[in-house]
Amino acid sequence: MRAAVLVRPGRIELQERPRPDPRPGEVLVRVRAVGVCGSDVHYFRDGRIGDLVVTGPLILGHECAGEVVAHGAGVRAPAIGTAVAVEPGWPCRRCVLCKTGRYHLCRELTFLATPPDDGALCEYLAVPADFAHPLPPGMSMAAGAMIEPLAVGVHAARQGEVQPGDTVVIFGGGPIGLCAAMAARGLGAHAVYLAEPDAFRRERAIAFGVAAAFSPADGGLDALRRAAGDRVAAVIETSGAPVAVQQACEVIGPGGRVVIVGFPPRDVPINLTRLMAREASIRTVWRYVNDHPLAIALAARGLAPVEQLITHRYTLDRVQLAMLEAGTPGRLKALVEL
Amino acid sequence: MRAAVLVRPGRIELQERPRPDPRPGEVLVRVRAVGVCGSDVHYFRDGRIGDLVVTGPLILGHECAGEVVAHGAGVRAPAIGTAVAVEPGWPCRRCVLCKTGRYHLCRELTFLATPPDDGALCEYLAVPADFAHPLPPGMSMAAGAMIEPLAVGVHAARQGEVQPGDTVVIFGGGPIGLCAAMAARGLGAHAVYLAEPDAFRRERAIAFGVAAAFSPADGGLDALRRAAGDRVAAVIETSGAPVAVQQACEVIGPGGRVVIVGFPPRDVPINLTRLMAREASIRTVWRYVNDHPLAIALAARGLAPVEQLITHRYTLDRVQLAMLEAGTPGRLKALVEL
Amino acid sequence: MRAAVLVRPGRIELQERPRPDPRPGEVLVRVRAVGVCGSDVHYFRDGRIGDLVVTGPLILGHECAGEVVAHGAGVRAPAIGTAVAVEPGWPCRRCVLCKTGRYHLCRELTFLATPPDDGALCEYLAVPADFAHPLPPGMSMAAGAMIEPLAVGVHAARQGEVQPGDTVVIFGGGPIGLCAAMAARGLGAHAVYLAEPDAFRRERAIAFGVAAAFSPADGGLDALRRAAGDRVAAVIETSGAPVAVQQACEVIGPGGRVVIVGFPPRDVPINLTRLMAREASIRTVWRYVNDHPLAIALAARGLAPVEQLITHRYTLDRVQLAMLEAGTPGRLKALVEL
Amino acid sequence: MRAAVLVRPGRIELQERPRPDPRPGEVLVRVRAVGVCGSDVHYFRDGRIGDLVVTGPLILGHECAGEVVAHGAGVRAPAIGTAVAVEPGWPCRRCVLCKTGRYHLCRELTFLATPPDDGALCEYLAVPADFAHPLPPGMSMAAGAMIEPLAVGVHAARQGEVQPGDTVVIFGGGPIGLCAAMAARGLGAHAVYLAEPDAFRRERAIAFGVAAAFSPADGGLDALRRAAGDRVAAVIETSGAPVAVQQACEVIGPGGRVVIVGFPPRDVPINLTRLMAREASIRTVWRYVNDHPLAIALAARGLAPVEQLITHRYTLDRVQLAMLEAGTPGRLKALVEL
Repeated sequence: MRAAVLVRPGRIELQERPRPDPRPGEVLVRVRAVGVCGSDVHYFRDGRIGDLVVTGPLILGHECAGEVVAHGAGVRAPAIGTAVAVEPGWPCRRCVLCKTGRYHLCRELTFLATPPDDGALCEYLAVPADFAHPLPPGMSMAAGAMIEPLAVGVHAARQGEVQPGDTVVIFGGGPIGLCAAMAARGLGAHAVYLAEPDAFRRERAIAFGVAAAFSPADGGLDALRRAAGDRVAAVIETSGAPVAVQQACEVIGPGGRVVIVGFPPRDVPINLTRLMAREASIRTVWRYVNDHPLAIALAARGLAPVEQLITHRYTLDRVQLAMLEAGTPGRLKALVEL
Repeated sequence: MRAAVLVRPGRIELQERPRPDPRPGEVLVRVRAVGVCGSDVHYFRDGRIGDLVVTGPLILGHECAGEVVAHGAGVRAPAIGTAVAVEPGWPCRRCVLCKTGRYHLCRELTFLATPPDDGALCEYLAVPADFAHPLPPGMSMAAGAMIEPLAVGVHAARQGEVQPGDTVVIFGGGPIGLCAAMAARGLGAHAVYLAEPDAFRRERAIAFGVAAAFSPADGGLDALRRAAGDRVAAVIETSGAPVAVQQACEVIGPGGRVVIVGFPPRDVPINLTRLMAREASIRTVWRYVNDHPLAIALAARGLAPVEQLITHRYTLDRVQLAMLEAGTPGRLKALVEL
Repeated sequence: MRAAVLVRPGRIELQERPRPDPRPGEVLVRVRAVGVCGSDVHYFRDGRIGDLVVTGPLILGHECAGEVVAHGAGVRAPAIGTAVAVEPGWPCRRCVLCKTGRYHLCRELTFLATPPDDGALCEYLAVPADFAHPLPPGMSMAAGAMIEPLAVGVHAARQGEVQPGDTVVIFGGGPIGLCAAMAARGLGAHAVYLAEPDAFRRERAIAFGVAAAFSPADGGLDALRRAAGDRVAAVIETSGAPVAVQQACEVIGPGGRVVIVGFPPRDVPINLTRLMAREASIRTVWRYVNDHPLAIALAARGLAPVEQLITHRYTLDRVQLAMLEAGTPGRLKALVEL
Repeated sequence: MRAAVLVRPGRIELQERPRPDPRPGEVLVRVRAVGVCGSDVHYFRDGRIGDLVVTGPLILGHECAGEVVAHGAGVRAPAIGTAVAVEPGWPCRRCVLCKTGRYHLCRELTFLATPPDDGALCEYLAVPADFAHPLPPGMSMAAGAMIEPLAVGVHAARQGEVQPGDTVVIFGGGPIGLCAAMAARGLGAHAVYLAEPDAFRRERAIAFGVAAAFSPADGGLDALRRAAGDRVAAVIETSGAPVAVQQACEVIGPGGRVVIVGFPPRDVPINLTRLMAREASIRTVWRYVNDHPLAIALAARGLAPVEQLITHRYTLDRVQLAMLEAGTPGRLKALVEL
């Protein structure tokens, strides 16, 4: 099969690789669509993310949808021919964290496109059958690939304990911020506001259920606070900017939750006494757990128009270009189609 | 009645004040014991805590027990003669926060010894009847005055979602830290460890249910981590030291809660990515809410030997001395007896 | 002022009564719309509901909206002129249940139109200000009167712990069942099914967000089960029919909640071992608590078209007729307009 | 190896069976102690429990402790030589229920001594390594075998949401009732009362942390209600007697939980309106899930003296006698030692 392989930082080549065989409990997925994530771009540019270092050839990509084409032993579902979204982290199933429903924190988790494990930018992928989530009829492969970032948004909104009727503020209007906005709405938030410096992203955000978007600079934060009021139940910070974390802690209401999704590049000085006076808390997000089914349901019902996240599309032989063009203005999400 | 009045920073005088009359719904309490809190000492020394400034004569003290001696209109309980612990913050009872069981976050809360409201270091206090919590037979007034800090500990343990069987770490071995340790045990924690630099406090901690106490310096933190293991469910930070907050975030286990009780004097740089990798959270504590009944029950059953917190006792005419001696070595809690 | 007074079972007369004065903390409401509830009809026909016996003249009605026309002492909000929905049960605010956010279980609760307390079928009503919930601009008084039954539905859905994506089944397609359906949808249920024997009600139900409605007889229950599948998260029983309770217990999925809203007229034989095998539970509903704000928000956003519940309208001088016509076919909710 | 085999109802024979080999992920356990459960006695006497019918030779027993003597492939822990309590239900690990931390409701669960699966009354048992829970040093095999019923009690107390300070009532003073009492205390209940008709069991109950025990007949229930008061947070019904379920529903306090653990032999008529007036609920228990670690911890700390449950001991060749003597007066739990 063909695979887009990161052979060294900055260089992705199309190579032939052996097609995997599904082991017992696995399905073989013919990959059809793979979203390009910020982490893919990091590995491409720097060859590392923190302690995770690329030491050999690596296939990138973990936002993936495709079609089930074969079953490993013992597998009955999903049926051959089913379109699926791939949940890309697979746990041991036996530790206390797995058995208490928190498998995403399993220490033996393997995750697509995380060194040394290959990812999804190739034609075939063997996946544990229960991590291949069926897509409803009529959902596109492109939308299927966007289920993974939407699951991050769903998990963030759940960590924020978003309840029907809540007011929620999102910091950062990139794909994850927009997914968090859609998820907050899907959990019943009645008003979702966005803080985002980029005008293109602020404009696009309205299509994803944001009531109003503000630039955090030049008094925009004050305007946001006036709009959102003093009962903000959850703030979901997706930008990773330390100043955004600080602003999130200023915006949160009594008893509210500040949810950290974006990875800050350094320690963030936090005014804890301010949080204390409102008994607010800081929650964190580590990917997702049992969130794909709701993400799929929200997308299927039109509550999360994830396909509109995709602004640019590439073929498998142009992944190098997709990586090089990442971060240019006017982009939200790039998709590789196979 | 006699009252110990802060007339200016550093100066407390015994004065005569009119005895209050209980209004409808209130009981009149003959005050018998008042603990000296760090906040009292702050007001005494600096005349302020942050934005709260003492602008006129102020009676300090909010850790208070006494005896019900009169009823306002409509009051049936607690009966005349009942020993009570006074919960010192009284809400509006009508706002959304009050009606959803979070009355401690009520914006109209009045709180004893918080400018401009007088406190409990006087002979008589009028108290809403439901904020005068009956003490069980045999509990001393000294123990009754310690219910208030114990309620802080109970609330902290509850904010930490301490469950039976949990391992819990406390930072700071002062009265609040020890109350948090007792509360964590009362909620069923099976192992409670303490980080505290002062040797006197580490020694005393064992009597309050701490399994082992460590100095956070000189490798003590590593020893603590070896003892507590990698499944610490909650860390309760009571010292207010920024470095302790940071260490608390290093000690917490997967999915765990770092609970902030001590007020840090400045913004604390926090390594959020470290918390994210374990999906740990930071919870904060604002006093207590509905925590006095359990605090009293824990004390009554011997699970929280709060009277042992008291290392020094004073009479009402020596409150000035109590304030001056605060913070000297070998002290935990000072009590004023009337 | 004019009032519709139940002078003996079966007889309501229009009388003149003194207009109430709002006491401190109260607002005076000019009543504009009052829904007729099944409990009103019970009092009208039988002069009692269980142990609650009408022993003197009684004003009925507790589903009430109106306009604030005067303030008692100390009241600042809602402003004069504000349209409000009246929450008709007023607690002591001081007991443990009140202070832990469960004021609806307060033993000193007074409730409109519950002997010996008069209700809302009169021109003016004095109401604690925080139990007069402002309606958003443009919401009709008729819709405002329907907020009370919708709050029952919201509370039922919350007792059922309905989560986004859930499948929910409602038994009983009367006003409360339809309110529960709207609330379940408002809490994010993706599929709501209805069991209701009356064809008129089944037909009307679709307008309230029900995906499909079935008659529980003649194999309809099997059809419902095939439609709803084996993952039903909550069943909300609003009919009070013992057989419906039993069917609800058959339909519920693993770990699910059967919510009892309708009052069964006698003990219901329940197959507990069947519930045990799925570890399902039975929850009950006692009116509502802190549910009016979400009910109003759902109605305001078009998620709960409550005004469509109203099939018949009366003036204050025709309340007798409204009571007599209750229960005739083709009716959902009768409204009295003043 | 030797095994006690039920060859037909009423007849258990000692037979030779091949010693199992541990498969990948399993440990081989040398069985040392097996408690006799009511379900074992049912299978022995009647050859069935409801729909579960014994159709061939069956090894009974599922309350089991032993020693790890061999590892299947890939197993690192528990180490050879470790004493373990065996959790006897093993799930698929892949379905939604397993992945959300509710593996006990897995439809593919296999359970020891449930037809057609053999149980633990034999010398060797192959067990998934993570279902062999290490016992702390010094805990006897007899106590280890009692961890299983204690886990039922822990799960029941958790389903009852028992909180520190709560008042709890247990119906039924058999082994499961006493385990529930110990578990309720372990979760922090401050007062646990027992309703049990048998005087021997009432007497023994005190040793297990019960404050007072009452016979439900002859006014004993009234005495229990006077003792327990009107704030009973949870009632745990372990007897299976329909009248006990009804009494449990009378005793429960506002917002409380009636937990059904004993299997009623027929439908139980329940007064739901009574539960509704207090907004109480009925929860059910299906075995346990993730409860063994806390059960072991409670036993290890002396909070659950489970070994005192054992009143009669047998050897493997006398299992027939153990079954025949079951239910005679003056017995709590029989243990088979190998």
